[in-house]
Amino acid sequence: MASKKRLVSGIKPTGDLHLGNYFGAMRQFLDYQEEYESHLFIADYHALTTAYEPEKLRESIYRVAAGYIAIGIDPKKVTLYKQSDISEHSELAWVFNCITTMPFLMRAHAFKDAEAKNKEISVGTFDYPMLMAADILIYGADVVPVGKDQQQHIEIARDTAEKFNSRYGQTFKLPEALIREEVATVPGVDGQKMSKSYKNTIPLFGSKDEVANAVMGIVTDSDGEFPEYVYEIHKLFRGEDELKPLYGENKSNYKALKEALIADAEKVLSPMREKYNALLSDKAELEKTLVAGSEKVKELASEKMMDVRKKVGVSLN
Amino acid sequence: MASKKRLVSGIKPTGDLHLGNYFGAMRQFLDYQEEYESHLFIADYHALTTAYEPEKLRESIYRVAAGYIAIGIDPKKVTLYKQSDISEHSELAWVFNCITTMPFLMRAHAFKDAEAKNKEISVGTFDYPMLMAADILIYGADVVPVGKDQQQHIEIARDTAEKFNSRYGQTFKLPEALIREEVATVPGVDGQKMSKSYKNTIPLFGSKDEVANAVMGIVTDSDGEFPEYVYEIHKLFRGEDELKPLYGENKSNYKALKEALIADAEKVLSPMREKYNALLSDKAELEKTLVAGSEKVKELASEKMMDVRKKVGVSLN
Repeated sequence: MASKKRLVSGIKPTGDLHLGNYFGAMRQFLDYQEEYESHLFIADYHALTTAYEPEKLRESIYRVAAGYIAIGIDPKKVTLYKQSDISEHSELAWVFNCITTMPFLMRAHAFKDAEAKNKEISVGTFDYPMLMAADILIYGADVVPVGKDQQQHIEIARDTAEKFNSRYGQTFKLPEALIREEVATVPGVDGQKMSKSYKNTIPLFGSKDEVANAVMGIVTDSDGEFPEYVYEIHKLFRGEDELKPLYGENKSNYKALKEALIADAEKVLSPMREKYNALLSDKAELEKTLVAGSEKVKELASEKMMDVRKKVGVSLN
Repeated sequence: MASKKRLVSGIKPTGDLHLGNYFGAMRQFLDYQEEYESHLFIADYHALTTAYEPEKLRESIYRVAAGYIAIGIDPKKVTLYKQSDISEHSELAWVFNCITTMPFLMRAHAFKDAEAKNKEISVGTFDYPMLMAADILIYGADVVPVGKDQQQHIEIARDTAEKFNSRYGQTFKLPEALIREEVATVPGVDGQKMSKSYKNTIPLFGSKDEVANAVMGIVTDSDGEFPEYVYEIHKLFRGEDELKPLYGENKSNYKALKEALIADAEKVLSPMREKYNALLSDKAELEKTLVAGSEKVKELASEKMMDVRKKVGVSLN
């Protein structure tokens, strides 16, 4: 039997998971966990480039871990761990720093965007692509799922691997981007893409009331046949075959349509919410899961780093 | 009894130690090892910013370790270890990256010099001061011996400690620079400061013939009373009280003076050379010494890093 390809993906620790996260990205890991040998790490050291509230960051780590497990990620199938538990990531990032020129890294989008906005970005934000390259390359990832706008990260990781390999001998596998082409953009309650930064989200693990309140706030002044944003979100929960007659019968009864959406969403969300809350009520157990994950990958990271130290000449044996 | 202050210092792994290194810097550690609780680490991860030959780097690590022990550094008194053996250094450097802005780090001399020369420096060279801050702060150094031109490194480390402490609470001690004011600049055979880059060195651990050849090449066309560079180097080995009559009697007999210098140097250098060669003939033993050193500091680094992870919010317990 051919062994499965290895997939590595980082998830940002954000405490406020919403329907956009779920339908746009998280849910795909349910397929990935069957198809790939999947590594899913909570990118807490990346989060430090923007997170300054330790308690909030800590809580967010628990919440994303609980969130992914609640939607059906099985820690027995997927190795779930915290980036900061594997010190080899930042150690390898340092080695990559030494083979990368400033002009090369200054071409990265995040840096160019910040420069264009004249923002005082942190060295961490600038150096982010090197830590990300280390995150991926240290495990010999075959594929890395990314949105189209994140392809550059994989290109930088590949370039870095090639640079290292050509200087010090074959060491790193070149990963492929697994582009999520077909993923639907989930509209927020204002019709823009659902995003925390637009404050237009419907919470994934909110209470029934919180979800209902958000749904009731969906903008409905549309020119189309149906209240389009309600419909767009509704069809994520129920087949269009059933939705079309329902929307046809209630064309201008927005309240009835929103209530139907709330009821349909509740069927999908309530079991996940229950699991999520149960997981969060036992943080010691959640932590154990993350520690078990890090123990699984630690050896892999440690072996690769030993090889790297030998290749660059800092290791004596 | 008051406990000793802690001194931390990094040494560049360079295979070609010369009299300038010895009289200008190395020898002072013989005093430091009595006065301070001294940490002396071989800065092999810093070396990666310029070293691309793994075998040469590895050999250099052995040679500086042997060199320091050969001149009298006692690994029982001084903790001697390799930077790359303590992964916490680069991990902490990453955390520092996240609290440091690009403009702040762009003010560092090494970066400004390179920019002025329009050189494509590596990200490692740019980020060097953050790794250096980590090297120092992780052990709570009280003092760091530096040349006058390296004071900025200590300032950056202090600024970084203050930034971290004010954001996350008291964590790092602010180190003081231990400026080596009185150290003589050792002239090279051409009269410029002795430096590997000027190719004007007299080897510290070279054979008697190698030393003699280098001494015979010392430039003597001087306007002064004595052949000044010969005299300047000679007085490092023998008191001026004895030298003055000797140089008075042999004013223009450069050959006799150089031969006297060779003989005086040999008395000092030969026991060190013997020890150096003996140490290098048993690399396994040298490695053991470095491993023992890293084991001594590992716990300190590991505890500090646990504290840092807690403070920034990536640690769950």
